[in-house]
Amino acid sequence: MRIAQVAPLDEAVPPKLYGGTERVVSYLTEALVGQNHQVTLFASAESHTSARLVPCCPRALRLDPTCADRVVHHVRQVEAVMARAAEFDVIHFHTNYLHFPFARRSPVPVLTTLHGRQDLADLAPLYADFSDLALVSISDAQRRPIARANWLGTVHHGLPADLLAPRLGGGDYLAFIGRFSPEKRFDRAVAIAKAVGIRLKVAAKADAADQAYFERVVRPLLADPMVDWLGEIGESAKAEFLGGALAHLFPIDWPEPFGLVMIEAMACGTPTIAWPHGSVPEVVENGITGFVVSSVDEAALAVSACARFDRAGCRAAFERRFVATRMATDYVQLYRRLAADWEFYGRPIGDGPGSTAA
Amino acid sequence: MRIAQVAPLDEAVPPKLYGGTERVVSYLTEALVGQNHQVTLFASAESHTSARLVPCCPRALRLDPTCADRVVHHVRQVEAVMARAAEFDVIHFHTNYLHFPFARRSPVPVLTTLHGRQDLADLAPLYADFSDLALVSISDAQRRPIARANWLGTVHHGLPADLLAPRLGGGDYLAFIGRFSPEKRFDRAVAIAKAVGIRLKVAAKADAADQAYFERVVRPLLADPMVDWLGEIGESAKAEFLGGALAHLFPIDWPEPFGLVMIEAMACGTPTIAWPHGSVPEVVENGITGFVVSSVDEAALAVSACARFDRAGCRAAFERRFVATRMATDYVQLYRRLAADWEFYGRPIGDGPGSTAA
Repeated sequence: MRIAQVAPLDEAVPPKLYGGTERVVSYLTEALVGQNHQVTLFASAESHTSARLVPCCPRALRLDPTCADRVVHHVRQVEAVMARAAEFDVIHFHTNYLHFPFARRSPVPVLTTLHGRQDLADLAPLYADFSDLALVSISDAQRRPIARANWLGTVHHGLPADLLAPRLGGGDYLAFIGRFSPEKRFDRAVAIAKAVGIRLKVAAKADAADQAYFERVVRPLLADPMVDWLGEIGESAKAEFLGGALAHLFPIDWPEPFGLVMIEAMACGTPTIAWPHGSVPEVVENGITGFVVSSVDEAALAVSACARFDRAGCRAAFERRFVATRMATDYVQLYRRLAADWEFYGRPIGDGPGSTAA
Repeated sequence: MRIAQVAPLDEAVPPKLYGGTERVVSYLTEALVGQNHQVTLFASAESHTSARLVPCCPRALRLDPTCADRVVHHVRQVEAVMARAAEFDVIHFHTNYLHFPFARRSPVPVLTTLHGRQDLADLAPLYADFSDLALVSISDAQRRPIARANWLGTVHHGLPADLLAPRLGGGDYLAFIGRFSPEKRFDRAVAIAKAVGIRLKVAAKADAADQAYFERVVRPLLADPMVDWLGEIGESAKAEFLGGALAHLFPIDWPEPFGLVMIEAMACGTPTIAWPHGSVPEVVENGITGFVVSSVDEAALAVSACARFDRAGCRAAFERRFVATRMATDYVQLYRRLAADWEFYGRPIGDGPGSTAA
């Protein structure tokens, strides 16, 4: 198929540092090219892809000191896509909602994967207005706050199979990775480590917005002799950090839309011990790829179980469920279904819900 | 004509408190209705208008504590306008650029008045992409940073003639009104007052973003015995505050796109003493409605001239140049010209500059 992938411009595709959405768009794009589709990627000019790249801004916006308004560039991107729409069989947006008025009037099928949490009050009337647009969720849980929408499917993320090599030997520490924000519950991770008497290695940093929380809650916990803080680590160090761990701790307290790090651990053969919020129960298979727990006591029990954990079985589950080729195949199935619907019913032009603004 | 006015949703139309753009849209809308046009206003539900109101969000966004993302609501507004486009002879946007991809494909003529400063680096490629869209500037000076655009005209703002009654007696103090931000140069206003030995009355407040500047620069100046700080004042107190002044000081240091307060002073018969940045030389007629100066010494000389100032002549200039009916007439002329061009040339569909994104 002739497929357009429209990525956020905040980071390069793939991103140089942080940037979950752009990373997934990169994995998907490369996997689609690998499956012999003609893929065009609309992304920042710093992107690297084997697809055709349509550069939509010279530098990724988050790290561009001259950028004061990111929305401008995303509007220009919408125009760049609109101007070329007829070249594609399907257009796949990963960029929230700026393109919705266009999507409704597109000459070719459009679908949108939602990558963020959806429980903002502002979003409910948006989805009500555009309830005819084809949406894809990245977990079933992500859909909960959206009362009414035209869900085409859920497609779980996937990683290139060779991105992270499995480490079947296991390890002697617990791993916490990500950001020090309140909903990540670093405090629970420390409590688990202390309960089981196993060292906690921490690869994380605090965003500017979380500095007060960091000083008040996190810094005292980092001083604990059971805690070993490495700062932030790059992509290349992840395999060793996650793969060398006895278990990966994911004691979150928020509706995680997907949680890439869970499948990164899984790819390494490392079990994730996670609280059952958001996507967690869909991603973690209890006893196979990790343990879903609801208290520090349960988490401590799970850690003991990790000593006898089948790391090869965990990796096998990753290869079955969370590789990028599976993600690409799932999406192509949705593309074909959407295209067939358009062929049959015509495009869902919006003179319905969207025409009532209030 | 059947005219759509599309206002920002940040404030009600007219705004309850601050909000220059929404205030101008209100004046324009009411003047167009007064000239027997069929006007539809797309604005927050809290707006009051004699036009038909299409409410686009329940509450104005700036003061809505439940609003975390203002862009969502403006995208819904674009859709609301698009869904009704065929009902109008012309659609007039006052909401920056979110609608640009739509404007290019609109079935009816669209024009956009730019209300803000245009010297952000992000904006240059936007206007290059959309150089076919009809734009209106609120001063000629506002156009300077935009290299290439389809300028339909400049329309200076206007106020309802009866909004501010003239005070022909003049007054015994200097007036400074607005925000305490560095580019407003409150320090210059204090220096002028001290140079001439005339009391400075100040109606202003500091935004959260300017707190550090306020503490470091403004607060010490407010302690000066020549300075009388009234805090922030409402619309209703403006006539007395500006009208009671010998002169209004506008010693700005930035490219002011228009500067409504200059014509508010003018309506009261009060001369504005202003630095020649942005719109100032277009708005202030030297010796008639104020004095354009470039130093505190020149400003002090201008203050002495204000003792013999023709306040009735100032008010007459306001009535000639800056009333809302003049603004509405100017806009209708542009609407008719745009509509005639569309009739003759067809809509300027964008397969030109906009199709090249990089």
